[in-house]
Amino acid sequence: MNLVENLQWRYATKKMNGKTIPQEKLDYILEAARLAPSSSGLQPYKIFVITNEVLLQKIKPVAWDQSQITDASHVLVFAAWDGYSLDRIESVFNYTVQERGLPPETMDAYKEKLWGMYEPLSTEWHANHAAKQAYISFGMAIAAAAEQKVDATPMEGFIPEAVDELLGLKEQGLKSNLILTLGYRDEAGDWLVNMKKVRTPKEEFITEIK
Amino acid sequence: MNLVENLQWRYATKKMNGKTIPQEKLDYILEAARLAPSSSGLQPYKIFVITNEVLLQKIKPVAWDQSQITDASHVLVFAAWDGYSLDRIESVFNYTVQERGLPPETMDAYKEKLWGMYEPLSTEWHANHAAKQAYISFGMAIAAAAEQKVDATPMEGFIPEAVDELLGLKEQGLKSNLILTLGYRDEAGDWLVNMKKVRTPKEEFITEIK
Repeated sequence: MNLVENLQWRYATKKMNGKTIPQEKLDYILEAARLAPSSSGLQPYKIFVITNEVLLQKIKPVAWDQSQITDASHVLVFAAWDGYSLDRIESVFNYTVQERGLPPETMDAYKEKLWGMYEPLSTEWHANHAAKQAYISFGMAIAAAAEQKVDATPMEGFIPEAVDELLGLKEQGLKSNLILTLGYRDEAGDWLVNMKKVRTPKEEFITEIK
Repeated sequence: MNLVENLQWRYATKKMNGKTIPQEKLDYILEAARLAPSSSGLQPYKIFVITNEVLLQKIKPVAWDQSQITDASHVLVFAAWDGYSLDRIESVFNYTVQERGLPPETMDAYKEKLWGMYEPLSTEWHANHAAKQAYISFGMAIAAAAEQKVDATPMEGFIPEAVDELLGLKEQGLKSNLILTLGYRDEAGDWLVNMKKVRTPKEEFITEIK
């Protein structure tokens, strides 16, 4: 199946059956998320892969009591940087030039230009911009799960501050943005499984300017 | 090639050769973008597919003079809603229940709950939230292009207000968020094509909580 067929196959699974997905499928999904592009290649986000039952029992009530939190095989939390800093940018760029075998100063001018743009902007702008990059990675994880025939539920329905607290994200300069539960559908208990997938019609979604 | 291999193949093409991509490949990429999931299924964004040369010549200077704007086969502008409204939500939900053959009132309670959450939030929050959904769709378009062996350049480097003005987006209640140029690489002129792809190492990117 190609990407479009995989996207037609997938749906936001509402009820999972508790079965565990193989480690190689999990690794594949995480690798797709890691390979996602991001603005200036900064990848200003991380993924927490949670299977700890005690922790999941605490996340569930701050995630609208959605059953997938505890019925999933793995719960991924995407957490983006709470802001950009010259240190954070330097750390990524230094690693990039080192990996590429380039002179250390190769990205200095770009770094200055980028920080010149980011520094005057608000912390809220920073956090939103970093979070947006995480959404691209999130999309790749969703596509990868569908390719692996692993069910997934994309979730924004949780209290970010509560999840931040449970995972100790503030101390790490991160904010939780998204949850993706991975597992397998419980067809009998899932009201959405047989519903038609509805999307904005193509002619409304796309405007050609020739 | 699978998704991970496609993501390893792709890169942010810095120089394109002006060749046109086949219509069926363009359609495929747009269909992947259309099938992307979004919060509450609202798909609060649209895609403008631009091939008009006069318009592209005007976009280029407000996009840091990036050559791909005029050397690409097609330039996609992802534009998200400037805010949520009860009308917009109703319009999508009405279409959804109609397509699913459900009673008209099926989503009424959910609609009220959602609008109850969104209404008190700022216009800036709305616009950011809608834009974030567009990033997922953007990711799907990038993955689809790579699968089709079409080169693509994801861009945030442009002045959104200027692009909004050129496309008349304000009148449509939209804001430009992202540009994706589609085409084919000009290997000889592209400094990035032979550079190693660098990503945050897996052990740093992922934290397991068992």
